Amino acid sequence: MDTNLKFGRKVISVEEARAALREYVTSMAIETIPLDSSFGRRLAADVYADHNVPHFRRSGVDGYAVRSIDISEASPESPIQLKVIERIPSGTIPQFTISTGTASRIMTGAPVPDGADCVVMLEMTDSLRDEGEAAWVQVKKNVQAGSNITPIAGEIGLGDLLLQHGSLIGPGEAAILATFGYSEVPVYRKPRVAIFSTGSELLNVHAPLEPGRIRNSNSYMLAAQVEAAGGLPMIMPALSDDAPQVQAAVEHAMTHVDLVVTSGGVSVGDYDVLVDVFGRWDGKLLFNKVAMRPGTPTSAAIWNGKLLLALSGNPGASYVGFELFVKPLIKAMQGCANPYMEAFTANLDVDYGKASAYPRYVRGTTRIDNGCLWVRPAGVDKSSIMVSVKDADCLIWLPAGGQGFRIGDRVVVYPTSTGK
Amino acid sequence: MDTNLKFGRKVISVEEARAALREYVTSMAIETIPLDSSFGRRLAADVYADHNVPHFRRSGVDGYAVRSIDISEASPESPIQLKVIERIPSGTIPQFTISTGTASRIMTGAPVPDGADCVVMLEMTDSLRDEGEAAWVQVKKNVQAGSNITPIAGEIGLGDLLLQHGSLIGPGEAAILATFGYSEVPVYRKPRVAIFSTGSELLNVHAPLEPGRIRNSNSYMLAAQVEAAGGLPMIMPALSDDAPQVQAAVEHAMTHVDLVVTSGGVSVGDYDVLVDVFGRWDGKLLFNKVAMRPGTPTSAAIWNGKLLLALSGNPGASYVGFELFVKPLIKAMQGCANPYMEAFTANLDVDYGKASAYPRYVRGTTRIDNGCLWVRPAGVDKSSIMVSVKDADCLIWLPAGGQGFRIGDRVVVYPTSTGK
Repeated sequence: MDTNLKFGRKVISVEEARAALREYVTSMAIETIPLDSSFGRRLAADVYADHNVPHFRRSGVDGYAVRSIDISEASPESPIQLKVIERIPSGTIPQFTISTGTASRIMTGAPVPDGADCVVMLEMTDSLRDEGEAAWVQVKKNVQAGSNITPIAGEIGLGDLLLQHGSLIGPGEAAILATFGYSEVPVYRKPRVAIFSTGSELLNVHAPLEPGRIRNSNSYMLAAQVEAAGGLPMIMPALSDDAPQVQAAVEHAMTHVDLVVTSGGVSVGDYDVLVDVFGRWDGKLLFNKVAMRPGTPTSAAIWNGKLLLALSGNPGASYVGFELFVKPLIKAMQGCANPYMEAFTANLDVDYGKASAYPRYVRGTTRIDNGCLWVRPAGVDKSSIMVSVKDADCLIWLPAGGQGFRIGDRVVVYPTSTGK
Repeated sequence: MDTNLKFGRKVISVEEARAALREYVTSMAIETIPLDSSFGRRLAADVYADHNVPHFRRSGVDGYAVRSIDISEASPESPIQLKVIERIPSGTIPQFTISTGTASRIMTGAPVPDGADCVVMLEMTDSLRDEGEAAWVQVKKNVQAGSNITPIAGEIGLGDLLLQHGSLIGPGEAAILATFGYSEVPVYRKPRVAIFSTGSELLNVHAPLEPGRIRNSNSYMLAAQVEAAGGLPMIMPALSDDAPQVQAAVEHAMTHVDLVVTSGGVSVGDYDVLVDVFGRWDGKLLFNKVAMRPGTPTSAAIWNGKLLLALSGNPGASYVGFELFVKPLIKAMQGCANPYMEAFTANLDVDYGKASAYPRYVRGTTRIDNGCLWVRPAGVDKSSIMVSVKDADCLIWLPAGGQGFRIGDRVVVYPTSTGK
């Protein structure tokens, strides 16, 4: 085999690795699904307003639609009496115009009748009932013209861009889609992501423990990360140490899924089988060394237009590699315009002594104290220590070199998937 | 009807309302599902470690297992030569004990052989091959005892409590469950939540627009909120204005679901049908006025052991009412020990002039700047303005009274569901 693939690797930065991957992102097909199945999916179209909201002058309260000039002198001591000419439930159309000395009873959400320029809240009125047909209302407060009326287009104007292509559909997006009649919504198909773990030490999750062996936990962690990113995880059988077999398994998966993620087998060990596969493959190796800790040997390749992300095998490195490289891919495949985690600045909560030859991405836990954001490493930060992944809500980026970091230092932080 | 239900209401605080609801929370049944279907669900058991992790002395690197005393003088200039007596892939059991002058080739994750007290990274060694059977390694660096070995129980001790009952299963939790053999996971059944909207102005989402009428958007917004909270939303046909019909529809739903949420029909309007239902019902009204804006007329009742949350009808009030009252219920029904949003403090990003007779929950958008957290109202804050819900990632709590708030004021903030 080509020992250059193990020891002669060319290191690139995280940004260069991302740029290399970005070239090969392909959009998923668009499918149209019922609105109530679309939550958490990404829109495959821009949504513009095809009507004003509201499309009629809408009352914001229960009360009486009146002319403000008629009640300008109203007070609890000297209420103004108006004749009630109509009752307007929401969902109906007013039949009468308000003229001097008249009012219409109106419900929240109903169209304000012509002639009225304000609505007086029910609580500011007393109703008087005649024996005959007519009814009267006493208004005990003056209100200004426009009060309690949302004008036409007061919320949304015809033609407004409301939702952008690639947006995640949450509660607010769902409300907008419903308002504009999207009973069916165009969304991107969820990318199917095959997940392989390598290592002959791996036992299936249902297998009893054996000496020297451990159960495969990375595949499940990665599957949960795929799901949180909006993909459809498919956990595949663990890979053997045999390069031709591994190559066949990966190629078979690649013809059936949209993206393949592996963990392990990319380092310098004698059984690091992905390295051997890259050595014999007709796929194109994009990179096999990234200037980052953990996960320096993170690798990627493209084969028949499909990407393979080969993450470093220890749990911390797999977690970080997924967040930095795979999650943005899954989001971008569904039209997300800005798939990378947005960085922010936080204050380091503890001293952190480790300097490093490469920038470090430390799993971190944030807390907010009196308006400021503090961050500390989540649990013990050895990348092999799987138990602290659950406590991480971000990655702390620490630049290479230096003498370590002190409490109170400003550090760059990237939020991660927690499912919380 | 009982006009006291409209105008004689007793106002209670948000905390009192929550306490009233808490009394009636019932846990969902437990079901056991495959681990790879469990992401986003809540655990129905505590998870303890039934073995140490690692359960053998584990090598953290690819290299050579040696006695540290043998290589204490090693350097690039004067490497120490050791006889390689074994090759230990991960997943296998070492057969030989390391004694003076010997080493074993070892892979990441493999058990460290007896006699060895450290592992030297492959990069610090040169291997020499004899013509015969034996092989030799030259070690070019001294390393300390314990280096690159994770001791037994170095990560997790037998009996440790790893995950608590009620935890949400995310990537880190999935890794722990896999490690401890949970191929099947006990979780709480998702609460089925029926969602009704009231108002004769409401059109179905697929219906063409009509004068004076709007499409039902609240039901879809609430359904997305239910899903984000971990429930199973069921959007029901819009309710009529007829109290007996509404009562029958709600009672029918309550016999089939775990929780009912309605929006609208709780205010002082002539057609506020939920108020009429409460007036004639054999269910128990828990409250019908909460000291909060928006959503003062938020109401709740219990009927045959099932809760009904009747949210105020405008979109902003429905959103806020859901986050404050319904989301914690859905979480608590699945064993979540602390179902309320955790408050934090942020700095107000703009002046906010509105004083209020009741505490205000303003939909807000946070940003982080140089380690500190700032918050501003999301869009225009009128509670009827549905379009800004999508921009909110929190509720800003503003106490009652006062003269409004100034830029830079510290305010209490509660994170909300965004789906992002």
